[in-house]
Amino acid sequence: MVADAEVLRVLIEVLDEFAALSPFHRQRLGSYQIKLSHRGLLDAILQLCGVPKDRLRPICSSIDKLDKEPWESVRKEMVEVKNLPEQCADRIGQFVTRSGQPWELVRELRADAALCSGQFGAEEALADLERLFAYLDAMGNVLNRCILNLSLARGLDYYTGLIFEAVLTDGTTPLGSIGAGGRYDKLVGDFAGKQVPCVGTSVGIERIFSLMEDAERELAQATGRVIRASKTQVLVVGIGNVDLVQRLKLCDELWRAHLAAECVYTERPKMARQLQYALDRGIPVLAILGENELASGVVGLKRLSTQEQIQVDRGSSMLQAIRDWITAENSQQIHHYGSDPEGNGRSTTDEVPTAHTGNKPTDPW
Amino acid sequence: MVADAEVLRVLIEVLDEFAALSPFHRQRLGSYQIKLSHRGLLDAILQLCGVPKDRLRPICSSIDKLDKEPWESVRKEMVEVKNLPEQCADRIGQFVTRSGQPWELVRELRADAALCSGQFGAEEALADLERLFAYLDAMGNVLNRCILNLSLARGLDYYTGLIFEAVLTDGTTPLGSIGAGGRYDKLVGDFAGKQVPCVGTSVGIERIFSLMEDAERELAQATGRVIRASKTQVLVVGIGNVDLVQRLKLCDELWRAHLAAECVYTERPKMARQLQYALDRGIPVLAILGENELASGVVGLKRLSTQEQIQVDRGSSMLQAIRDWITAENSQQIHHYGSDPEGNGRSTTDEVPTAHTGNKPTDPW
Repeated sequence: MVADAEVLRVLIEVLDEFAALSPFHRQRLGSYQIKLSHRGLLDAILQLCGVPKDRLRPICSSIDKLDKEPWESVRKEMVEVKNLPEQCADRIGQFVTRSGQPWELVRELRADAALCSGQFGAEEALADLERLFAYLDAMGNVLNRCILNLSLARGLDYYTGLIFEAVLTDGTTPLGSIGAGGRYDKLVGDFAGKQVPCVGTSVGIERIFSLMEDAERELAQATGRVIRASKTQVLVVGIGNVDLVQRLKLCDELWRAHLAAECVYTERPKMARQLQYALDRGIPVLAILGENELASGVVGLKRLSTQEQIQVDRGSSMLQAIRDWITAENSQQIHHYGSDPEGNGRSTTDEVPTAHTGNKPTDPW
Repeated sequence: MVADAEVLRVLIEVLDEFAALSPFHRQRLGSYQIKLSHRGLLDAILQLCGVPKDRLRPICSSIDKLDKEPWESVRKEMVEVKNLPEQCADRIGQFVTRSGQPWELVRELRADAALCSGQFGAEEALADLERLFAYLDAMGNVLNRCILNLSLARGLDYYTGLIFEAVLTDGTTPLGSIGAGGRYDKLVGDFAGKQVPCVGTSVGIERIFSLMEDAERELAQATGRVIRASKTQVLVVGIGNVDLVQRLKLCDELWRAHLAAECVYTERPKMARQLQYALDRGIPVLAILGENELASGVVGLKRLSTQEQIQVDRGSSMLQAIRDWITAENSQQIHHYGSDPEGNGRSTTDEVPTAHTGNKPTDPW
């Protein structure tokens, strides 16, 4: 059970780090609870209530619906669809509606002479849980986040011991599960031939990122900062007769200096289109190439947020000027956590996406 | 074709970064070539040679074997298995055995009046390649890494334009492909309904890591440094009656300080077993808890490589002493790039793996 305890601690550490990013993140992600239970305990309870051994899994999958449906409708399914005697379903109902502080509920179950009669394996499952709780107690305040919840069944058949689910408890998020896992000691053996005991957790990263985007927007609004829709730092812009190859050459110089640069993918796009492209994505710096710049080996640099514009030699002074502006911008901007449609500023299509939702600097021209 | 060019440049940048890690890495991974071609060009060649349109893909998959088999056996398959007329196969042979500097070979193919007669679409494919080469020329020396190779077919049906493969050319690696990709404009549309043009690359990370492990071993041998089999920095060791819960408490204190710590998972393992565990994995520091240490709030620290042993207060002085030793160790050690059987020092089983292949410090006791 040490590995089980470590997995729970890792899950809590990960979730707490998301919540720690700002007060807005804490508000969205800071209130959660780990519901946990044990497959062996659930099986023992079901057998005590009169469920035959070969019907444990179908009844489990009915119980699994208790987080979305009231007990009455789960009971109805057990009796009418799965042909469980009513009396049997009612006994199950007395157990699976219980949940509480882990040590306390385990103590109550230990005191249940019928459950712990040595017939159903409840003692082994409770001993597992007691060891788990002792290890969690040793790992700081991990157990404070946990609740032993006998309605937790985890529909998947492969779990063999501990099962758990992290659920948001702020009441505003309708589908609040942001992580889940458990022990699955037989799954690898079923495929690989060799038994490999396993315990693991998954984090609901899409759901968490969606909540983080909400938090980022609130944070941006509260602080007046800008959310950038792209990680690109420099848009290489061509004026007049400067073609794509010339712009790519400058991109290449910036890439070699580890600056995230891109250009619009058409041969000679209009200036207005290139500017709009930068504004839509929140790209902070333009590197501007006209025929004069090309001829004299210089580049025009424009910082969109402040309207500063300078001309520099194409080389180390260009790189330094860009880095200075990027550093200044980074202290004012928030990177977008969601999916970057440009894949780090490199795109496979030439489509201009719709404008992002953050504040935009006003048109500099 | 800008996106195609960027994808090739990204692939080359990634591969070059691996090779740049040491002279040993350069020797293993520095000599490679990007073989490239174009599905439209291959289709045009096959049609010119008399392959009916509905037989293009099966003949393609024969050509795809040319990197493993000689032309004669590929020809035999075309004629005997795929019922292609001999004359037709021989004409194909005259094309697919050609490869050369990209600009030169494209120029030769442009001069082939039969191929570029306007019937087979070769002109469009060659124009694609010319644009690609111009962009690659603009991106530094990317094209120097590339060869246009008409035997490249890429068995997968979904490619629609550029195809490429990165192949080690040092001659010592039997299966030398370390990256591949191309354009697949219809694949997403086939599943999603909406057409999304795509170009991408994959990197053969398992093969590259295996070569990097060889390079790491050579580097370690040449410099007398140690390859660690685990990322764990501290093994928390119990002596006498100190149980698992006490050791986990100390692990937790170290985790909170962002130190990678673990302990052996049994209740009261023998000292020799715990020491062997640390030696097998190259864990550099032991944090030792006996009953005396527990009673007086101190910890024994031992650095295995130097045999230094100190006793410190459990708290910031403990953390500082460990950090100092880790810093000193990091300047002498090489982290193992391969799969860490402990998953960042956290294991789901209690199995002791076989000793790693690096040099081991001698037994300190």
